[in-house]
Amino acid sequence: MAFHSIIPAGGIGSRLWPLSRAAHPKFLSDFTGSGASMLQETATRLRPLSDSLTIVTSQQYASEVAQQVSDASILTEPSPRGTMPAIALATAIIMHSDPGAVVGSFAADHYIHDEQAFHSAVARAIEAANDGYIATLGITPDSPSTAYGYIRRGADTVAEGAYRAEAFVEKPDEQTAQNYLGAGTYVWNAGIFIAKARVLWEQLEALRPDISQPISEIAGAWGSADYEETLGTLWPTIPDTVIDRIIAEPCASEGRVAVVPVDMGWSDIGDFDSLAEIMSKSESAPHSPTLEIDCARSFICGIDKPVVVLGIEGAVVVETPEALLVTRRESAQNVKKIVDSLPEKGLENLL
Amino acid sequence: MAFHSIIPAGGIGSRLWPLSRAAHPKFLSDFTGSGASMLQETATRLRPLSDSLTIVTSQQYASEVAQQVSDASILTEPSPRGTMPAIALATAIIMHSDPGAVVGSFAADHYIHDEQAFHSAVARAIEAANDGYIATLGITPDSPSTAYGYIRRGADTVAEGAYRAEAFVEKPDEQTAQNYLGAGTYVWNAGIFIAKARVLWEQLEALRPDISQPISEIAGAWGSADYEETLGTLWPTIPDTVIDRIIAEPCASEGRVAVVPVDMGWSDIGDFDSLAEIMSKSESAPHSPTLEIDCARSFICGIDKPVVVLGIEGAVVVETPEALLVTRRESAQNVKKIVDSLPEKGLENLL
Repeated sequence: MAFHSIIPAGGIGSRLWPLSRAAHPKFLSDFTGSGASMLQETATRLRPLSDSLTIVTSQQYASEVAQQVSDASILTEPSPRGTMPAIALATAIIMHSDPGAVVGSFAADHYIHDEQAFHSAVARAIEAANDGYIATLGITPDSPSTAYGYIRRGADTVAEGAYRAEAFVEKPDEQTAQNYLGAGTYVWNAGIFIAKARVLWEQLEALRPDISQPISEIAGAWGSADYEETLGTLWPTIPDTVIDRIIAEPCASEGRVAVVPVDMGWSDIGDFDSLAEIMSKSESAPHSPTLEIDCARSFICGIDKPVVVLGIEGAVVVETPEALLVTRRESAQNVKKIVDSLPEKGLENLL
Repeated sequence: MAFHSIIPAGGIGSRLWPLSRAAHPKFLSDFTGSGASMLQETATRLRPLSDSLTIVTSQQYASEVAQQVSDASILTEPSPRGTMPAIALATAIIMHSDPGAVVGSFAADHYIHDEQAFHSAVARAIEAANDGYIATLGITPDSPSTAYGYIRRGADTVAEGAYRAEAFVEKPDEQTAQNYLGAGTYVWNAGIFIAKARVLWEQLEALRPDISQPISEIAGAWGSADYEETLGTLWPTIPDTVIDRIIAEPCASEGRVAVVPVDMGWSDIGDFDSLAEIMSKSESAPHSPTLEIDCARSFICGIDKPVVVLGIEGAVVVETPEALLVTRRESAQNVKKIVDSLPEKGLENLL
C-alpha cells in the first residue's frame, strides 16, 4: 500500500517576525542554520518513507517552493483556508489515482532532531492507519509547555506502540501543564495525521459536507482545462478550518484516533523562545559576534557587529534589513501582536 | 576685573558607549540633537560672560577642538591627570598675563537648559569670588538622584544668593538621597568652580605643593621654545587628581567655599538614564523610526530602520556603525564595565 505525504505550507510565522515574514516565511528559510530551508528539511525527512510528496501552498510561494523541492507535486491555494481544506484537496487528488492510498500530513516548518525516531513512529502510525485508525504522532513532553496543545492517551495499546487518543486538549495554563507532565499520559499535538485517504475522506463527508463537496468538485477538475477556474470559483466558499478541530477531535471521542508517542527532539519553532531553545542546542547556529554580559538565555540573531546585552535576562535581539526587534523570551508569544498592528500603522511593507 | 573660563575636556564618557567612545567622545558630539557639540554649547554659553576661553584637552582631540571652538586657547595634556592639574595649568598661565583674574572651570559635556539662570548664577558666583570665596554652583535637586555628589549648604547667605558650602558629600544611597531631597539644604555638585586665580593658586600651593610646583614650572615655560619639553618631562610626575577633592573639600571645611543654588535644567548626561531623561523633554531629539509596544521610558537611538521593543520597560537600544548596545535604564551605570572589559577581549578598536 502506497504512502503519500502532504505538506501544507502556508504559515507565515508571525511570532518570529522579522525573521519570518509574509514576504519570506519561516518554511522557506534556513532557520536552524542547517543549510536547508525548513520545507527542504521536511521533504528530505519524508522522502525515504513516501511514494509521493504533495505541497499545498499559496500562489505567491509556488515558484520558490517548486525551486526548493523539485520532486513534489504543488497545489496552490487562491487564499489561505487553514489545514483542513489543504489536506482534503491533496487527499482527494491522491485518492483519484490511488484509491487505496494512505496519506500523512506534516507541517512544513517543524524541527525534528532525531530522524530515525521519526521514521519509526511514522511506520507505526501507518500500521495503525492500515487498521482503519486516524493515527497521529504525540510528542513525549520534556517540559510543562504552555505553547502546545496536548493529546490525552489511553492506558492500553491498540497497535504496536500506538494508544487510543482519548481527547485533544487546548494549550493549558502553567499549573495544568505541570499536571499533564506528571500524569505521563499527555503528549504534545504535533499536528501530524496519518490515515487511509478513504477513511479521512469519509469522515470529512460525514462531518462537513460543506467542505467535502466543493473540494470534491475541484479535485474532479484536476488535470483538466477547467481546474483553475473551478478552483478560483469554489475555493473562496470553503470555510477556514483546521483538521484537528474538524476531524481529529470528533473522531477521538469515537475512539477512532490512535496516537504513537515519540521522543524525537521535536519543536514547532513557533516563537523566539522555542527558537532560542533549539539554537542553544545546535552547533550550526548562526552566531552574531557578541560581547554578552549578564544576559543569560539571550538570543541574538542577524547582527553583523558586536552586540552587548546588559541586565536583560532572556533578551531577544533580532535584526533584519527591514527591522530590529528587541524583546524577552517571556514575551515571545506577543510578537504576533506587533505584526497584526503593522497594517493599521501603514507599514504593510514590513509584513 | 576680568573673568576667564577654563574648560577641561578630557572625559570619554564610558557609560555612554557606544555613542561616546575614546575615538569620538561625548564632548565633541552633538548629543542632544541641538546641531552643536556639547563642547560648542559650553563655549557658546560661556562666551558672553568671559574675557577668554581656555580648553584643556589631550593631544588626540586638540585639532578637532580647535576646529570646533576657534576662539579658544587650547592647552594639551600629554596624558590624562584629572581636573586638578588641568585647571591649575590653565589658571597659572592666565594669572601670568592677568594677575587679578577671576577664573571659572566648567565641564565640557554638561547640559544646561536655562542659559539665563546659568548666567545669573555665574554672575553671583563671580561676586562671591571677588569677596575671596571659592564659589560653586549647586543644582537644586528635582529628584533623589544617586548618580550625583551633593553639597550641604548653611542656612544663611554669605553674599547675594550665595550660601556657605559646609560639606561636599559622595553619591548617596537611595534612602540618603531621599533624606537630602527632604532636607532642602542639599544641592547637586555640578563641578563648577569660580575663584580669583590667586586664591585658587595659593590654596593649591598650601595644600599640594607636589602639584603646584611642576605646574608652575610648566606655566613659566609657556610661550617659550622649551614649553613642550618642560610639559613632556614634568606632566607625567603630576598625580591624577580632581579639584573637588584637592581644593573644594578642604576649603569647605574651613568655610571658604560659597555655593550659589540654581535651578537651570542641568544634567551631566553621565549615562543613558540621564540622556533618556533629557531626550524625553527635548523637541530636537533625533528619533529612530519606532514601533514601540509596551516599552515605557525606552531610549532608542541611531537605528535607521523600524524598531520594536516589546516587554522591556525602560529599554535602551543604541546602535552605531561599530556596535549595538541593548540594556535598561536601571543598568545604565554598568555600561562602563563593558567598556573597561574591551581591551582584555582584544576589542580595543571599539573603544
